[in-house]
Amino acid sequence: MKSFYDLAALETEHVEELLTLSRHLQTHPEPRVLQGKVFSMLFLSRSLRTLSSFQAAMIRMGGGAFVISPDMSIHGMEVHSGVVMDGVAAEHLREAVPVIASYGDAMGLRAVAERRHMHRDLADEAYLDIAKLVDKPLVNMESAAYHPCQSLGDWKTLDDLGVARQGGRLVISWTFHPQALPLSGPISTLQSAAMRGMDVTVLRPDGFEMPASVMQRARTLAARSGGSVRETNDRREALQGAHILYAKEWSSTRHYGDPIAETKLRNELTDWCVSEPWFKNTDPQCRLMHAMPVRREVSVADAVLDSARSAIIRQAENRMWAQMAVLYRLFKPAV
Amino acid sequence: MKSFYDLAALETEHVEELLTLSRHLQTHPEPRVLQGKVFSMLFLSRSLRTLSSFQAAMIRMGGGAFVISPDMSIHGMEVHSGVVMDGVAAEHLREAVPVIASYGDAMGLRAVAERRHMHRDLADEAYLDIAKLVDKPLVNMESAAYHPCQSLGDWKTLDDLGVARQGGRLVISWTFHPQALPLSGPISTLQSAAMRGMDVTVLRPDGFEMPASVMQRARTLAARSGGSVRETNDRREALQGAHILYAKEWSSTRHYGDPIAETKLRNELTDWCVSEPWFKNTDPQCRLMHAMPVRREVSVADAVLDSARSAIIRQAENRMWAQMAVLYRLFKPAV
Amino acid sequence: MKSFYDLAALETEHVEELLTLSRHLQTHPEPRVLQGKVFSMLFLSRSLRTLSSFQAAMIRMGGGAFVISPDMSIHGMEVHSGVVMDGVAAEHLREAVPVIASYGDAMGLRAVAERRHMHRDLADEAYLDIAKLVDKPLVNMESAAYHPCQSLGDWKTLDDLGVARQGGRLVISWTFHPQALPLSGPISTLQSAAMRGMDVTVLRPDGFEMPASVMQRARTLAARSGGSVRETNDRREALQGAHILYAKEWSSTRHYGDPIAETKLRNELTDWCVSEPWFKNTDPQCRLMHAMPVRREVSVADAVLDSARSAIIRQAENRMWAQMAVLYRLFKPAV
Repeated sequence: MKSFYDLAALETEHVEELLTLSRHLQTHPEPRVLQGKVFSMLFLSRSLRTLSSFQAAMIRMGGGAFVISPDMSIHGMEVHSGVVMDGVAAEHLREAVPVIASYGDAMGLRAVAERRHMHRDLADEAYLDIAKLVDKPLVNMESAAYHPCQSLGDWKTLDDLGVARQGGRLVISWTFHPQALPLSGPISTLQSAAMRGMDVTVLRPDGFEMPASVMQRARTLAARSGGSVRETNDRREALQGAHILYAKEWSSTRHYGDPIAETKLRNELTDWCVSEPWFKNTDPQCRLMHAMPVRREVSVADAVLDSARSAIIRQAENRMWAQMAVLYRLFKPAV
Repeated sequence: MKSFYDLAALETEHVEELLTLSRHLQTHPEPRVLQGKVFSMLFLSRSLRTLSSFQAAMIRMGGGAFVISPDMSIHGMEVHSGVVMDGVAAEHLREAVPVIASYGDAMGLRAVAERRHMHRDLADEAYLDIAKLVDKPLVNMESAAYHPCQSLGDWKTLDDLGVARQGGRLVISWTFHPQALPLSGPISTLQSAAMRGMDVTVLRPDGFEMPASVMQRARTLAARSGGSVRETNDRREALQGAHILYAKEWSSTRHYGDPIAETKLRNELTDWCVSEPWFKNTDPQCRLMHAMPVRREVSVADAVLDSARSAIIRQAENRMWAQMAVLYRLFKPAV
Repeated sequence: MKSFYDLAALETEHVEELLTLSRHLQTHPEPRVLQGKVFSMLFLSRSLRTLSSFQAAMIRMGGGAFVISPDMSIHGMEVHSGVVMDGVAAEHLREAVPVIASYGDAMGLRAVAERRHMHRDLADEAYLDIAKLVDKPLVNMESAAYHPCQSLGDWKTLDDLGVARQGGRLVISWTFHPQALPLSGPISTLQSAAMRGMDVTVLRPDGFEMPASVMQRARTLAARSGGSVRETNDRREALQGAHILYAKEWSSTRHYGDPIAETKLRNELTDWCVSEPWFKNTDPQCRLMHAMPVRREVSVADAVLDSARSAIIRQAENRMWAQMAVLYRLFKPAV
């Protein structure tokens, strides 16, 4: 494996091989396998789970990581091309990225959605522009369009919970959040669940539709795996018989890059906070998933987060086990 | 050992066993014993010694640590229950803590004294509420009521300096500081010195008395060990024949949670800055201890800090050696 | 080796031995050689390359590092002697430095040029005052007067690029920058290039002359190695036949410590931005070097940085390989 960018671009067998390796590393520690190996991590936005779980993953295999983040150690980072750098920023990404890459055997990058032009974010131009500067194996630690580490961990969580591939019903529901968040989460969740063969429903208020190209790709993945994909604004219909309610906040696609219009639309939607009544017609064992951070009583009610329905801590822990398999394969090519 | 929370709650033999192990690890490095092991560290307030010494301790035994602190990597952390999270904080401790714990084999937590209600801080409710969310071995890296890592390191320092257990005279003296600092330091110092069998005097201005329950427990510990405990506002009497002057700043207990009254009382007490004359009637070899950070010429005079009396650097170094024994026991149960 | 402070103070044979070791470690990893060893890093100003490359260097040899920087984990750090610490700073360097040193087997220190009195900065008083507090092997991670890690890495880069020692022509050119930067870079570059036996030209506008003592030492080093040293403000003459154009920003030496006069002088010099025409009379293979961070279109033009002339990423990578040799020698004395 040369990079880990978009889970849905892998073959299903490849994903399954990674999960088998992940479970193996979870039960059979290999504390020397990455001895002397360095993972370089560059965050262009804040992180808690990704930051921690990758460091822990490297230590568990005997190597180590270093972190460069916007809050530390940076002389102000310019990202735009052709700029006369006479302002605050003392350093350009064009230099910083290859330097950071040069110190490691592989690199992780978290880029940020610009949220100005949807086509640019869906094409992941900001991430891919940076990726061109890296000549080492590269891990996408979340870009504007994808979050493959989250999706691989979630796939493991679905397996751990015994959620069926064929016939498993997963609902990705938009939830309220005071800010406009990126599309990477719903896109990756939708496409990897479709690839897993599940019956996937995107539940969202009008104005928050998944882009047509995203739905089209999900349909193709579902067709290949025997799953299905649909989209609705009807909560009751969507949740009927669901095994997983995957809560997620995302930007308005109708008003993408127009914060004033988006805020106006969004502020009418505070009732999109997942609460116990949402589970009335789901499968009785229906579990809540969420990639965190989650705003209590805003995106999901306390009563749900604190109930046995919640699988979110397990999801977060699985980030580490999943990423260990990714790092293992990047550092040690499969035999 | 399943957790390390309050030194005085351990049996004296257990403390001695930890110190024996500490000295062994100091002279006989074991650079592979914690290979592949991860210590998760969560700081809810700033740190220098604890932050550094735990990382160094893990590296020295072949493992590693990751750090989450309020200055880095956090989306604003909500600590209160039942809050509608529509403000700045994007993440709740109820999620963050179990996630951070899940990435490590043991966890360290620094909580903060709320300093509103003394009974709540003495009962360590903030720390213990968080501890309930952790299902791994947990190290108290300082709570509102206790600082056991400091106390274990200090016990080693007293041993290193050859200060007698029976008959050793230790004075914990309040010193001036522009801010109201927590009670964890004086409580832990008092109780562990009493447990060590020393004759302990708390010297403080009126308004800064140790809480009755704290003194009572110290008396019980002293009775068991053959030591003694007393409290006074009389500097001359307190310091007579002292072997250790342990300087420490703490909040007014008379005006606990009342910053205006406290500031008024405190600002009359700037002469509580340890200077050479304080040592006039002490044992000639009397040493200064302080847990740092120390404000020069405010809490302790330069002349004392820069003299041979000062044992504070050794104290800080002993944090690392003491914590290595704690980590060793938490990760590798005694045979 | 007991410390690594000023490259030009070493014997040339010693530098060559370090570079041989560096190349060996680059091609023959030793992932266990520093197992259990700790490198303590204290930054008093921001860093990206030094911060990352030392952490990576320690991990590559099986040890680890911890970092204390002004942006994290510090209670506000007082640096002046004799201060009554009743302000924001809660901690004094006099305590923090020996404590940080005590946790490691060696320590790295980045101090800052005060830029008030040139004689004080050239004598490196701030760094040397702190160094007195350290009783472990100490690495200069950049002081007011020297940057030996940069110089050792640059020497390796010159070797890698096949730049001749005898007869190699290196021009250190001042370039524009909106801020007054320290002299450590040009001093170390000049003196180590002279020591390497090269023909070195300092090209700078009037008012930015190298101090006489610095030039004198460079001449002595050049005399010993068969190199030469000169200084000029004539760009055309300086660059004639050059093999390396080493771009660097530094403070006015005429107006040192006088920001108003310096700014006035500096602001007339925005044409000192390295661009392709600067290479008209150089050797056709002339390469650009720069220690970074570099301000694009301010200090160096995009077209040069993005061309095959630029060796700056290789320079930055060589920081790590060079520092690995330094750390190896500090932790494991040569046999």
